[in-house]
Amino acid sequence: MRYLIKFSYDGTLFLGYQKQPNKRTVEGELEKALYSINNHKATRIYSSGRTDRGVHALGQTAHFDLEVNITLYKLKCALNSLLPDDIHVIEVNNVDESFHARFLVKKKTYKYYLNMGEYDPTRRNIIYQYNKLLDIDSMCYAIKSFCGQHDFKIFTSMEAVKTSYVRTIYDATIEVLGDLVVFTFTGDGFMKYQIRNMVGTLIKIGKGKLDKNIIDKLLNNELSNKYVYTAKPEGLYLVDVYY
Amino acid sequence: MRYLIKFSYDGTLFLGYQKQPNKRTVEGELEKALYSINNHKATRIYSSGRTDRGVHALGQTAHFDLEVNITLYKLKCALNSLLPDDIHVIEVNNVDESFHARFLVKKKTYKYYLNMGEYDPTRRNIIYQYNKLLDIDSMCYAIKSFCGQHDFKIFTSMEAVKTSYVRTIYDATIEVLGDLVVFTFTGDGFMKYQIRNMVGTLIKIGKGKLDKNIIDKLLNNELSNKYVYTAKPEGLYLVDVYY
Repeated sequence: MRYLIKFSYDGTLFLGYQKQPNKRTVEGELEKALYSINNHKATRIYSSGRTDRGVHALGQTAHFDLEVNITLYKLKCALNSLLPDDIHVIEVNNVDESFHARFLVKKKTYKYYLNMGEYDPTRRNIIYQYNKLLDIDSMCYAIKSFCGQHDFKIFTSMEAVKTSYVRTIYDATIEVLGDLVVFTFTGDGFMKYQIRNMVGTLIKIGKGKLDKNIIDKLLNNELSNKYVYTAKPEGLYLVDVYY
Repeated sequence: MRYLIKFSYDGTLFLGYQKQPNKRTVEGELEKALYSINNHKATRIYSSGRTDRGVHALGQTAHFDLEVNITLYKLKCALNSLLPDDIHVIEVNNVDESFHARFLVKKKTYKYYLNMGEYDPTRRNIIYQYNKLLDIDSMCYAIKSFCGQHDFKIFTSMEAVKTSYVRTIYDATIEVLGDLVVFTFTGDGFMKYQIRNMVGTLIKIGKGKLDKNIIDKLLNNELSNKYVYTAKPEGLYLVDVYY
């Protein structure tokens, strides 16, 4: 039987997402729990995609196959009792044998949280502590340039080698709630560092270090990637995966 | 010169508030930083009061005396550069030699955060993960009984030996923001475990396990303390100290 799970995690104490020998990773912890549940049989999980080290998730998804017979409710309880307290399974569903958690993704939503106010030690690992005011109007103007279909190569990690860097962003917004700035991006897919690089560059615009029209020029390859800045991972959350 | 500081901390990784040999405490870290600033002279700090292990602060206060000459701005910078990233100095002020951060407290405000929604691993150390719905109306009714002057002995820790357990609570409220419940208490002083015991008992009322009129009976010593429950520390924040 194939199962699809929706789960959340605090990225702070993981050495990344993907399984690696002798390293504490999100995938590794999930596969360890599934090994116990699936009669001590190595069980691979297939996620919607990886997240960078230090990045959080409130709605990550993955599928896996089990040989044992177990109800959805018992599987959720078993997973949550075996998993460490920084990973939590929100939902468990049965899916068709043809379902694939990565290949069938239609859209993903990410949020990035930034604090413009006083440094808050209680939120230091879950909200980026920028601790200075930003020019929100410039950032709201600039973020619109990301919407639509573009070649995002300049906004990805140099390590990311892809056949195509063309992605579509359906929606990109900035909300301000007191000192908190929330960036939301929904798109058909995001590459390594892409959101952190888009947010990092928007922050430089909000700081007045970059012109608010620079995004269009970067997307049109009129400028080098030295104008692209990477925002810290701790403000970033994968919030939803749509199929 | 005497200085008054306002500071915040994340209680998660401290083994309590008060200095203890070979233990990482909030007071210990502050005194270590002040030792460096005050020409390697042992410098005691006097806080508005302790907080329990695991409890956070967004507006704790303390005073201390320095022999060195240093501007307020430089003192703030020096402290924040020497302190670990889970303590942060928000404000530094000069005060009169007669000022005392504990004896002159007029009021304190504490907040307690509880999540009624899905378990959130990213907030597990800073919001109590209750993860079930509560009857807010009963709790709002019951919390009013705490307001005014009462003998709170039944709501303090058995260890707390005081000459008087009489305290005044000026304001006690519950706000609901989606799945988040925020309890706010302002009073002339709170004893060990007092707020956690008040909140823990309110939670049992919200759960339907205790009658909503029980607070009056407990405050009037008509019932034993077996009806008093202690809420977990991670939801509690000292937010303001008034002089």
